[in-house]
Amino acid sequence: MSAKQVLPIIWENNTLKLIDQRQLPHKKIYQSINSLEGCHNGIKDMVVRGAPCIGFTALFAMALWSQNNQEYSKDDLNQACDYLISARPTAVNLEYEVRRVQVILQKALDENSTKEVYKKIIKFAQDEMNEAYEKNLLMAKYALDELTEIYGPSKLRILTHCNTGTLACGTLGTALGVISHLHTNQLIEKVWVDETRPYLQGSRLTSYELKCEGIPHEIVVEGAASLLMGGAKVDAIFVGADRIAANRDTANKVGTCNLAIIANYFQIPFYVVAPLSSFDLNTDQGSNIEIELRDPNEILKIQDKQIAPNGVTAFNPSFDITPSELIKGVICEKGIYRHGNNLTEVLDHS
Amino acid sequence: MSAKQVLPIIWENNTLKLIDQRQLPHKKIYQSINSLEGCHNGIKDMVVRGAPCIGFTALFAMALWSQNNQEYSKDDLNQACDYLISARPTAVNLEYEVRRVQVILQKALDENSTKEVYKKIIKFAQDEMNEAYEKNLLMAKYALDELTEIYGPSKLRILTHCNTGTLACGTLGTALGVISHLHTNQLIEKVWVDETRPYLQGSRLTSYELKCEGIPHEIVVEGAASLLMGGAKVDAIFVGADRIAANRDTANKVGTCNLAIIANYFQIPFYVVAPLSSFDLNTDQGSNIEIELRDPNEILKIQDKQIAPNGVTAFNPSFDITPSELIKGVICEKGIYRHGNNLTEVLDHS
Repeated sequence: MSAKQVLPIIWENNTLKLIDQRQLPHKKIYQSINSLEGCHNGIKDMVVRGAPCIGFTALFAMALWSQNNQEYSKDDLNQACDYLISARPTAVNLEYEVRRVQVILQKALDENSTKEVYKKIIKFAQDEMNEAYEKNLLMAKYALDELTEIYGPSKLRILTHCNTGTLACGTLGTALGVISHLHTNQLIEKVWVDETRPYLQGSRLTSYELKCEGIPHEIVVEGAASLLMGGAKVDAIFVGADRIAANRDTANKVGTCNLAIIANYFQIPFYVVAPLSSFDLNTDQGSNIEIELRDPNEILKIQDKQIAPNGVTAFNPSFDITPSELIKGVICEKGIYRHGNNLTEVLDHS
Repeated sequence: MSAKQVLPIIWENNTLKLIDQRQLPHKKIYQSINSLEGCHNGIKDMVVRGAPCIGFTALFAMALWSQNNQEYSKDDLNQACDYLISARPTAVNLEYEVRRVQVILQKALDENSTKEVYKKIIKFAQDEMNEAYEKNLLMAKYALDELTEIYGPSKLRILTHCNTGTLACGTLGTALGVISHLHTNQLIEKVWVDETRPYLQGSRLTSYELKCEGIPHEIVVEGAASLLMGGAKVDAIFVGADRIAANRDTANKVGTCNLAIIANYFQIPFYVVAPLSSFDLNTDQGSNIEIELRDPNEILKIQDKQIAPNGVTAFNPSFDITPSELIKGVICEKGIYRHGNNLTEVLDHS
């Protein structure tokens, strides 16, 4: 990791430190957490956000619990797991990671080796984060090679949407990991950051991460995409993914498909960057992905102040689906998955 | 005009009433103005906004001045005109209308008929507004005919951007005038209102006008365009225009060209609605229209609260240019001007 990157999750002296993302970008405050309860509250109160980060926090939460409870019963364990999962019951990632640790802790119970099992859990969490970092770095390298093939070794203007960096992923990040890696290789001229309405992840978080790393950037409203691309001010677009269907259709933050269509019109390469764990091969195409609808007040109010007339409603989909045909490449840790290719070809290639 | 429409400019009992647009949508307050100074301040302090509205206010401002100054010298007149224009020196429309009235008032001076010339000015202003209304209504009728030809007499889902209604135009409005007319004819199922970042004209003003007229609508972020259009939730898109080049390329609020490209991708008809006075035949194509760059703080701050990290900048273009090829029709008071046609054909047709 670059020394300048802002780590949202740090494990140090048997203590978990979480950056309070609610206070970014204006205050950089780490909370030191020594208990399962502290982690539960940190997840529940959105101190930590982003599916990968919530997952890593859950691993360290269980490490802290087993450190503080070196003798436990099956009931104690089940109770601890349920309590942690209840912090954000809809976060699939949270339950997934808790269940993985539960297996290790149950095995220790069965083998009468509960006393120092916490060390195993800590190592498991750290290995998971390191592995995620390595995957992110591999993706970034594939992206760099791809761009060098298109543009040669020249500096690039990259547009990105939402927040896909260290703050969301705990490690290098996906689309923003690519940008960070390009910058490390002196290949960034400028990053255009979509402010990303309604939740403003671009203005608040992506801009903060870029600023910390010293990467030149300007924030734009989503409406400016055509002016930028039509004015030859963008060389490539990188976004993340929430879920990728078997046919490569991609669900990501609302506004992503707009960018893909506009990029296609102006013939600018558009890439999705996501680990293989984002692939949902049980879903054959994007139209079968359910779109989460969020609270209309995210649009009607800004910073708790009513903007729209009282009584008016808003339609607030969280994601949209970008058709595979508009995506020049889906960049995962195994290589670049292209339209018309079969995923197994990408996997075999590695 | 529909009784439910919110008139921003009312002339009543020799007094000008301006709705205070800064307080919309939460408070509906009219300021009663009896002097040139009052009008100057209303324009300067943004009580009134929108190029046509500023122009009409200027006409009534000069009517009030000549009503209060039934004997005046050439110097008095010039001073009054300069003072009014200085309220918003960059508003081309303001100077244009002031100069037109100045000619009438100068003629009265030359003919020693200054005493009751104010009645002429009032009539001139009222005629101008009535004429603008008639033009708006003609455009709306052309739009209705066009949609009926495509969709038959079925109810429609229309998407619009920014604010192009009575509050901006003083009369029926352009794109929003079409929507109002469709609603009067029971042809609106729903209107999708782009919130229109950064200045939120959609959330604040368009939604307010639609609410007052009882037209069903929901506010969306600009990022939702592809999801709406790809999900077959939009039948047509109507926007206004700030300037239209000779080749039909159209400058309008930033975000307009995004909509046109996305509409084109999903084969949804996209229309610009604008009077002939918006045509700039001296500009051959859109790329020759200068794009106004506005204060980055409109993006970096919301309601005076800093959102982005300190020291970060934003790129804030006010307009973008939609290429003629993406516009199914430019609807003006003489008919529908189509891609590949010559403007004179439209004018001859009338």
